[in-house]
Amino acid sequence: MKYKAINFKDKFSKFTEHWSPRVIAEMNNYQFKLAKVEGEFVWHDHPDTDEVFIVIEGTLNIEFRDGVVTLNAGEMFVIPKGVEHKPVATSECKIMLVEPKGVVNTGKSGGELTAENDVWV
Amino acid sequence: MKYKAINFKDKFSKFTEHWSPRVIAEMNNYQFKLAKVEGEFVWHDHPDTDEVFIVIEGTLNIEFRDGVVTLNAGEMFVIPKGVEHKPVATSECKIMLVEPKGVVNTGKSGGELTAENDVWV
Repeated sequence: MKYKAINFKDKFSKFTEHWSPRVIAEMNNYQFKLAKVEGEFVWHDHPDTDEVFIVIEGTLNIEFRDGVVTLNAGEMFVIPKGVEHKPVATSECKIMLVEPKGVVNTGKSGGELTAENDVWV
Repeated sequence: MKYKAINFKDKFSKFTEHWSPRVIAEMNNYQFKLAKVEGEFVWHDHPDTDEVFIVIEGTLNIEFRDGVVTLNAGEMFVIPKGVEHKPVATSECKIMLVEPKGVVNTGKSGGELTAENDVWV
């Protein structure tokens, strides 16, 4: 088949790791990544780019230094560049991220939750 | 509330027109747009950019000169820049588009389905 749909459920079925985004598509120099998340991520920011979170299944809280946004399935949020944030999911949540190719999940904060970049599924 | 989720259902409830994308978010110089589509669109291409289609509800066929892709809810496709395509929906379908700000829905093909650009909802 020359033209094939990219199916989120199918892609999610192919990995189990948390906080480990998998690329499913590229548009120009941007990537669409799926991730399964659970628990608390680290505080970080992306100084050079905005970052989009879309919740596919479950509930994600994104904490800011001065507030929080709760995203359920069918909701999205744009983190402005340079704004510190910490994603938190009390139970497993499936999300899609949209951001330029090369963005590291923990920004410059590093740590054990830093995932390998540009891993496709 | 300082931080507010962007809810797709809520945004879709605010307009009824077909083939008339409404911007719901910006990330850097890219826009996320919702559209309700039904029937046949016009053949066109976007010579300077890829274009992402994500189906939120319903079924969308995207025809190419040498094939077709069918997208159901929870599926996406990236139209490569310069590739002629024609979206077709046999019944109303709700989609999200992701593309650089300023992209015209009909490319350079024009016609009555050409929508006003940068209309937010």
